[in-house]
Amino acid sequence: MKRQAFFISDGTGITAETLGHSLLAQFESIEFEQVTLPYIDSITKAQEVVTRLNDLAQAGSRPIVFDTIVNQDIRDEISKADAFKVDIFATFLAPLEKELNMGSSYTVGKSHVGGDNKSYLARIDAVNFALDNDDGSKIKHYDKADIILVGVSRSGKTPSCLYLALQFGIKAANYPLTEEDLGNGDLPKALQAHKHKLFGLTIDPERLAAIRNERKANSRYASLNQCYYETEEVEMLFQRMNIPFLTTTDLSVEEISTRIMVDTKLNRRA
Amino acid sequence: MKRQAFFISDGTGITAETLGHSLLAQFESIEFEQVTLPYIDSITKAQEVVTRLNDLAQAGSRPIVFDTIVNQDIRDEISKADAFKVDIFATFLAPLEKELNMGSSYTVGKSHVGGDNKSYLARIDAVNFALDNDDGSKIKHYDKADIILVGVSRSGKTPSCLYLALQFGIKAANYPLTEEDLGNGDLPKALQAHKHKLFGLTIDPERLAAIRNERKANSRYASLNQCYYETEEVEMLFQRMNIPFLTTTDLSVEEISTRIMVDTKLNRRA
Repeated sequence: MKRQAFFISDGTGITAETLGHSLLAQFESIEFEQVTLPYIDSITKAQEVVTRLNDLAQAGSRPIVFDTIVNQDIRDEISKADAFKVDIFATFLAPLEKELNMGSSYTVGKSHVGGDNKSYLARIDAVNFALDNDDGSKIKHYDKADIILVGVSRSGKTPSCLYLALQFGIKAANYPLTEEDLGNGDLPKALQAHKHKLFGLTIDPERLAAIRNERKANSRYASLNQCYYETEEVEMLFQRMNIPFLTTTDLSVEEISTRIMVDTKLNRRA
Repeated sequence: MKRQAFFISDGTGITAETLGHSLLAQFESIEFEQVTLPYIDSITKAQEVVTRLNDLAQAGSRPIVFDTIVNQDIRDEISKADAFKVDIFATFLAPLEKELNMGSSYTVGKSHVGGDNKSYLARIDAVNFALDNDDGSKIKHYDKADIILVGVSRSGKTPSCLYLALQFGIKAANYPLTEEDLGNGDLPKALQAHKHKLFGLTIDPERLAAIRNERKANSRYASLNQCYYETEEVEMLFQRMNIPFLTTTDLSVEEISTRIMVDTKLNRRA
């Protein structure tokens, strides 16, 4: 079975897409062809969308539409399409207006602009911080870090730091624990003064070997032996040093980052 | 006016938070204190949340709750709270089930896991690509890039590349156009073979000067003169070379990235 799903917005479409993905994921046996149509911000563009939707319906497969269009004229246009429509704003804004005892502002794209400039700058600052302090390259700014992720190479540190920055405005550095750092029972010198900021990532050694093999096939670095040795050593180190840690094997960067926020009780800056 | 809003989930809470932000942004005159509570995946945790919500209600401010809890028992527990509840899944899943003629799977956390491993790997690959090809540091992989962002320093290239990677799985490199590259009427050598992949970013010179001053206060680099010169030169270059470009002054990375996807008609890999 296959159905077409559209996420339509006069802004970026991120809200419609995020909600749509979550809802469609509840129907595992259906394969959805998912299309995001952002910046549908004129009647002409809306009419093109309607034609596209109607063509699909006529071909026998009525499309599913998730939309977050705030402009009433554009929304009216889209509603003419022969589609199953999940109108996110219309559904929830009316009851919210009643609860808040106030009308809502229906400005085109309004909902998609991060109105809070300070919060936005915090995110961009944090991205720059993550880049400047990636992979143990610089260690002199660790006093300014909110958190320092530690773990073996390819355990998920860098993407998690970037996501923590983009999503939460958290300044996350990361330091790779390499063979030279392991086996002596102590933390690398660069980390010792910042023990309270450390958070460990580890990963199933077989998965690690698979990831490393994609990077450096058949190397010692990617060998199962080496991956077992390194992950065992870091996990012992985390435990000995009371460093909180997380196994990333089956987690996405979104999940790793969210769990880190929960476990460390860090306050988001964005 | 101030109201408390909670985004509650047994997964990461990203869906509830994204939708909640969008909806609350429509009420500009109310200040919302927004709290995300992810991984509420047990009755005990749910009971703690209910207590917290009831305390607020009793203090005179009924909280607003957006939830995407899929587990029925946990959802029932949360529903006991004295709160205005926007139940995202319950609202939309029933009509979707009818349209699709099929029950949905209510597994805890199901909706939050990116089930598509290939798509996830594409995102992580793209993040690594963006890091490896940031800031003109390496130019030998440009043949593997989906897009190369060009523009003056601090026009938004790096965060946009990272967002393109994380959100869309797009391999985006970036190359900073510095003073040495400008004024001679031609593209830097490293870019000439990849002209079809170039996308320009520019920015209002006064805004650019403000951003650069935060980085290097009172430098020539941050001076208004220099910022006017560089932005004028890059914009002339973009026009002369027929490079599509975007002014990033008032745009978030989400908006810059989405507009790039629309303008270039790039296909997402995630």
